[in-house]
Amino acid sequence: MKKSVLFLLGLLICMPSIAQQALWDPQQPPTAEVHPDQSVTIRIWAPTAQEVLLEGELAGTVPMQRDSIGLWTYTTAPLAADLYLYYLRIDGVRALDPGNTYVARDIASLFNYVLVSDYRSRDIAHGTVQHVWYPLSGFAHGRRVSIYLPAGYTDHPQRRYPVLYLLHGSGGDEQAWLELGRAAQILDEEIAAGRACPMIVVMPNGNYSEDAAPGYGSKGDVRPGVPNENRMDGLFEGHFPELVRWVDRHYRTQAKASHRAISGLSMGGYHTYWIALNNPRMFHYVSPLSAVYHWGEMSADVYAQEAEKRQALWKARPEVHFYIGNEDFLYQQNVELRAELDSCGYAYRYTESTGGHQWKNWRRYLQQVVREIFHH
Amino acid sequence: MKKSVLFLLGLLICMPSIAQQALWDPQQPPTAEVHPDQSVTIRIWAPTAQEVLLEGELAGTVPMQRDSIGLWTYTTAPLAADLYLYYLRIDGVRALDPGNTYVARDIASLFNYVLVSDYRSRDIAHGTVQHVWYPLSGFAHGRRVSIYLPAGYTDHPQRRYPVLYLLHGSGGDEQAWLELGRAAQILDEEIAAGRACPMIVVMPNGNYSEDAAPGYGSKGDVRPGVPNENRMDGLFEGHFPELVRWVDRHYRTQAKASHRAISGLSMGGYHTYWIALNNPRMFHYVSPLSAVYHWGEMSADVYAQEAEKRQALWKARPEVHFYIGNEDFLYQQNVELRAELDSCGYAYRYTESTGGHQWKNWRRYLQQVVREIFHH
Repeated sequence: MKKSVLFLLGLLICMPSIAQQALWDPQQPPTAEVHPDQSVTIRIWAPTAQEVLLEGELAGTVPMQRDSIGLWTYTTAPLAADLYLYYLRIDGVRALDPGNTYVARDIASLFNYVLVSDYRSRDIAHGTVQHVWYPLSGFAHGRRVSIYLPAGYTDHPQRRYPVLYLLHGSGGDEQAWLELGRAAQILDEEIAAGRACPMIVVMPNGNYSEDAAPGYGSKGDVRPGVPNENRMDGLFEGHFPELVRWVDRHYRTQAKASHRAISGLSMGGYHTYWIALNNPRMFHYVSPLSAVYHWGEMSADVYAQEAEKRQALWKARPEVHFYIGNEDFLYQQNVELRAELDSCGYAYRYTESTGGHQWKNWRRYLQQVVREIFHH
Repeated sequence: MKKSVLFLLGLLICMPSIAQQALWDPQQPPTAEVHPDQSVTIRIWAPTAQEVLLEGELAGTVPMQRDSIGLWTYTTAPLAADLYLYYLRIDGVRALDPGNTYVARDIASLFNYVLVSDYRSRDIAHGTVQHVWYPLSGFAHGRRVSIYLPAGYTDHPQRRYPVLYLLHGSGGDEQAWLELGRAAQILDEEIAAGRACPMIVVMPNGNYSEDAAPGYGSKGDVRPGVPNENRMDGLFEGHFPELVRWVDRHYRTQAKASHRAISGLSMGGYHTYWIALNNPRMFHYVSPLSAVYHWGEMSADVYAQEAEKRQALWKARPEVHFYIGNEDFLYQQNVELRAELDSCGYAYRYTESTGGHQWKNWRRYLQQVVREIFHH
């Protein structure tokens, strides 16, 4: 132990401007500490700060308490098992907790997070996550897609699998469902427990004009662009069958509608709905989560003839399941869509949860979606 | 566009405590802006802060300048093409730049980074990156390893490839070479340019007691533990042949020493050296980068009989190539090792660069390593 610490000190001495603030610095207090009762303590060493706020999902916005030497602390009430996003505000400036290496992006901001009991990688069989570039019209060298292959995929070279296409929301990318959505951990757990069939999960980037997530694509911008028409202008939806064909050619899929599902959150629910409408015999399972259905001008062909396309889709007798929280800002739009479907006598399932437009819900919806698809 | 902004506003209104600080907030200024002359401007909105320092690789530690309303700015001199780590210190507290979503972990701290010209994903053919769990003695459900498959791997099912095993340093994990090492971008570029052979690159987690990087493994701790004996106690090195056998069984490798290379930085160079010594006919190419060779008690069997193992290794006539910077804190240890090899008449190559124990060097070394291996 002592020698290893010396080695670390060597690293620190060698890189004074960079590594001095390593978390191994004894001055840096333990943070995001989850107690046995599932309360969480956040700590930050900030002797010269005048005010430190804790903001986010742990406790709303609350002031942290300073001790006599400059250590600021806040302990939450006991929390339900979940992933919690938070950040700090130090003298008015938003900051990440320097003691916590768990960081994820949501929309266009970074958050620390803490896993209270749930969504860790448990000691069960694990699937493989791939980041692959697939060809698409208009992209000389393709676009990046994340693909989950269930445990055993490589060891059973004759076996074929159903496929879930899982789409992110506005401001997300091909990593969103893996990071904040904890898709790999959820799939591992549901499959290991026998509640979900082993399946391939395909998570593309729904921002048609971006070839990959920030830092992985050909753009050098350090932050995603403002939302633009390329997110909901029909291009992503129109090109979607190319992705499905590529997946069926490159993976051992059960390449038929009965073994294909599509689901997505928010903007990804919009994509889900319109992709299903334009390809009525491509997916037997269609699950929009907290979705928007109509937005902006919608002049692209994929948005034309909605009534006729709905008729064609329901004629194929898909299992359509809508999910939304009762505080979601898109709630009313969902009410209206269901009223239209009801007026046509179209069958669907509907699950209403508490809460709003948030990952907390989408992770739970994903658990439900993977449990109910491919059991025919 | 207007409608999309409304949609975003809907998101913000719906998640006031979480998303208000989205980077799309017009108050948040553009940051990490790379100018045509390769100078970089960092900006942060911090009207109530008394002092904001920019720290890291962009300009050392320098004060940022406040304008009359509270926008702090610093513009660097023109910079060489590279990846630069930085962070801010706001009234004494280390903070990430809230306007920059490019973040990576080094040792146990988070840094913002900016790509000045180099190491982006260019418009060339891209390999696939996998995160796979492989079985290992003592781990019921395995350990996580990152694997790079070159472009074309899936489309040429008869072709077999050489394999580079690429090991991280103390405080790193199976993602380190992909994030700060930019291994996928380097391999894509070197292979596309014909300077490197298409190859598989295997990047395991060298911390034997950890099954995966923080956030991906079975441990819930938000920061890596202090360095412990499990990093350099022989367990990782002793079990390494299991990984090689698993790779040869699960990937289309050229499964022989002539088509296997091993390289690693710092602690990963230590692992490289001792794995090669204990398996003299496993790797034809052995490249320790800024490596440590002797550390701590080294009581494990894999560290015994060094002279005999060296003799056996050199008898197999491997191509051994040492890399180190002339300011590295491990420089003297490298001098001593080479003197010992010289005294035995063992052949090797040696490259000495400027600089110290830093990723800046390791990315350049990786470019050299992949150019010189597998060309026989």
